[in-house]
Amino acid sequence: MQEEFSQLFDTVSEEETRSRIKAFRERMYQRSIDYALVQVNVNLFYFTGTLQRGILLIPLRGEPGLLIQKAVERAELESPFPVRELKSMKQLPDHIRDMGLAAASRVGLELQEVPAALFEKLRTLLGAGECVNISEDLLRVRSRKSPYEMEQIKRSAALTEKVFSAVPDCLREGMKEIELAAALQAEGRIAGHQEIMRMRGFNQELTNPHVLAGTSAAAPSFADVPLAGYGTTAAVAQGASHRRIARKEPVIVDYGGGYNGYMTDETRSFALGGLESELVRAHTAAMEVAEYVERNSGPGVSCRELYWEAVGIAEREGLGEHFMGYGRHRVRFVGHGIGLYINEYPLIGDVEDTLEEGMVFAVEPKFVFPDKGAVGVEIDLRVTENGAQRLTGTPLDVVYC
Amino acid sequence: MQEEFSQLFDTVSEEETRSRIKAFRERMYQRSIDYALVQVNVNLFYFTGTLQRGILLIPLRGEPGLLIQKAVERAELESPFPVRELKSMKQLPDHIRDMGLAAASRVGLELQEVPAALFEKLRTLLGAGECVNISEDLLRVRSRKSPYEMEQIKRSAALTEKVFSAVPDCLREGMKEIELAAALQAEGRIAGHQEIMRMRGFNQELTNPHVLAGTSAAAPSFADVPLAGYGTTAAVAQGASHRRIARKEPVIVDYGGGYNGYMTDETRSFALGGLESELVRAHTAAMEVAEYVERNSGPGVSCRELYWEAVGIAEREGLGEHFMGYGRHRVRFVGHGIGLYINEYPLIGDVEDTLEEGMVFAVEPKFVFPDKGAVGVEIDLRVTENGAQRLTGTPLDVVYC
Repeated sequence: MQEEFSQLFDTVSEEETRSRIKAFRERMYQRSIDYALVQVNVNLFYFTGTLQRGILLIPLRGEPGLLIQKAVERAELESPFPVRELKSMKQLPDHIRDMGLAAASRVGLELQEVPAALFEKLRTLLGAGECVNISEDLLRVRSRKSPYEMEQIKRSAALTEKVFSAVPDCLREGMKEIELAAALQAEGRIAGHQEIMRMRGFNQELTNPHVLAGTSAAAPSFADVPLAGYGTTAAVAQGASHRRIARKEPVIVDYGGGYNGYMTDETRSFALGGLESELVRAHTAAMEVAEYVERNSGPGVSCRELYWEAVGIAEREGLGEHFMGYGRHRVRFVGHGIGLYINEYPLIGDVEDTLEEGMVFAVEPKFVFPDKGAVGVEIDLRVTENGAQRLTGTPLDVVYC
Repeated sequence: MQEEFSQLFDTVSEEETRSRIKAFRERMYQRSIDYALVQVNVNLFYFTGTLQRGILLIPLRGEPGLLIQKAVERAELESPFPVRELKSMKQLPDHIRDMGLAAASRVGLELQEVPAALFEKLRTLLGAGECVNISEDLLRVRSRKSPYEMEQIKRSAALTEKVFSAVPDCLREGMKEIELAAALQAEGRIAGHQEIMRMRGFNQELTNPHVLAGTSAAAPSFADVPLAGYGTTAAVAQGASHRRIARKEPVIVDYGGGYNGYMTDETRSFALGGLESELVRAHTAAMEVAEYVERNSGPGVSCRELYWEAVGIAEREGLGEHFMGYGRHRVRFVGHGIGLYINEYPLIGDVEDTLEEGMVFAVEPKFVFPDKGAVGVEIDLRVTENGAQRLTGTPLDVVYC
């Protein structure tokens, strides 16, 4: 397995994982957390390079302990950390004691994600003095990407470019949304897309790509997104549907790249044989918003100000009611961080948040017309000391096929 | 939206949802639960036909209340239930009072799935006397499928048949596992697969299909499955990989159908140009196990006995060490229920469980050889009063391409 594994996989360096743990420990120190118990798959992966089933114990000081229940041999290949076997959860207190940690400590857990029943079990097992929620701290640490992470994100963005460039060859009048979605999904998968998309939040899931033609793009949704589509069933309630694509209607393609854990998220608009002028005008406004955010992003910039400027552009064009959804279905943001989840920090919305160097986010100005569908773009931006850098070279204009 | 929606979607009948709620209430009564709060997307869908964001309140007696936060209009189209708007979670106690429910009640919640932080918030909000876990009750109720559910499951099984029949046309020497996976995924999606696969359990995810050639099938995994594969990254750690498919090695295709919420789960073995005799012999033993379980399943049959008989067949063939994984990586089951999750009740394993009429399960005898890969089959069976009924007509033999 070892030889085959090393041919197929790229693994993270020990230095990289240690610097991530260091950044998290600064937050532990500020919150007087004695040790943290990391279990959510993406967080485990972030700190150790593996998401085999287990727990990472991070004491405020001293060596972290990677305890794996299943599969130990694989975790050893994937992670630079020494792996200890956790034969059963009952052994956990012994490991904690072996690491010199006191029972009645202040313990950090991912309470936003860990199920209530599991948490109860752990609390009893640990006999912890106090349990505090570290979910937000982890998101904050993860929001600034390292150069290594940027490499992965660029590979994910390259998948996105590839998929968008395939649309004109695949799009045909009368085909179903799901047919175009299937063709584009296959393009990405063959190029190495990881298939799994991860969205933060209880009950959140993601189909990929979203191919929404005409009025499909106006279907309201449970998700906090400007457009979601019908999907093929109420049991999924998002994404491409059986609806057939007609001429002269907008076809929105929202594609999430996924490479080595990292997601990117871009959208382009397509149409067969032209679009009516109101939609063309709205698309131009969307490009204007995206370019405004690109030009004005940089370390220290207020997310709230960016958001209200974006709303301002939409309103000046008389399109406020259509911006980021229609009417009461509008969402109150124009962008969101991307990374191991497709929805990370920062939120470019009406919130107190500030751009920092190393952050990566998608800005997605979209306009929804209930009887016509949606137009708009979504581009991914990296915050550097000199401003924002776009991650793909795919043009923003409507592509007429 | 309404017209388009009704053309695109099939919705569940009120009668169907009411009979499901009735079955659940019998369990509430046995456990003295005053009211239940259902929030997990598949459970919401099961009882109401919609999984728009919200809560279903089920009192032991009287009308259930479907409270929707987002999107109300869509939930109204999807569900036969009257929808009440839940403007914010803070309104929840008012709705509970309006339904005539006492504050200090015994309340059922899905504690196996609801995150700890959300549970804390709800507990405070409700001022509930006692909170009990209803996750297992819901799984038990869901384990017996209605005729309507069987129709959906059959549509899902039909997707599976279609995908397996496409393998010989797609499989070529030297192609990557992900290339075959992409082609098969597209086949299913075009035929109406819902794309989203759901696996029960914290951190559980599912790529689909699993295309595992040769030694890929022997890679150990965090998941409770006999085979999982490498995947394309440690951040996913399952499924098809960049490994190229060679002649004379087994190619396992494990495909999950997905139609209107319902998953099916079947596996077939393929090979280019033949297989060595040990693998052929193992595959024959796998067919024998599957056919044994098929012949001997029916209401009242012990799952534990079925499991040990399956192990017995493997051991008589001298293949015990290779059955359902290799060595210490073997899993201790040979089948599992399917439905809104791919892993439901019953478990055909070393557990106390009994087959009931209306249950649907997959039986998946597989043999893993660390240096050669895996062979085996997986078939879906429906338990009827007269025994088990197979859901697809796809033959079980190795397909030589």
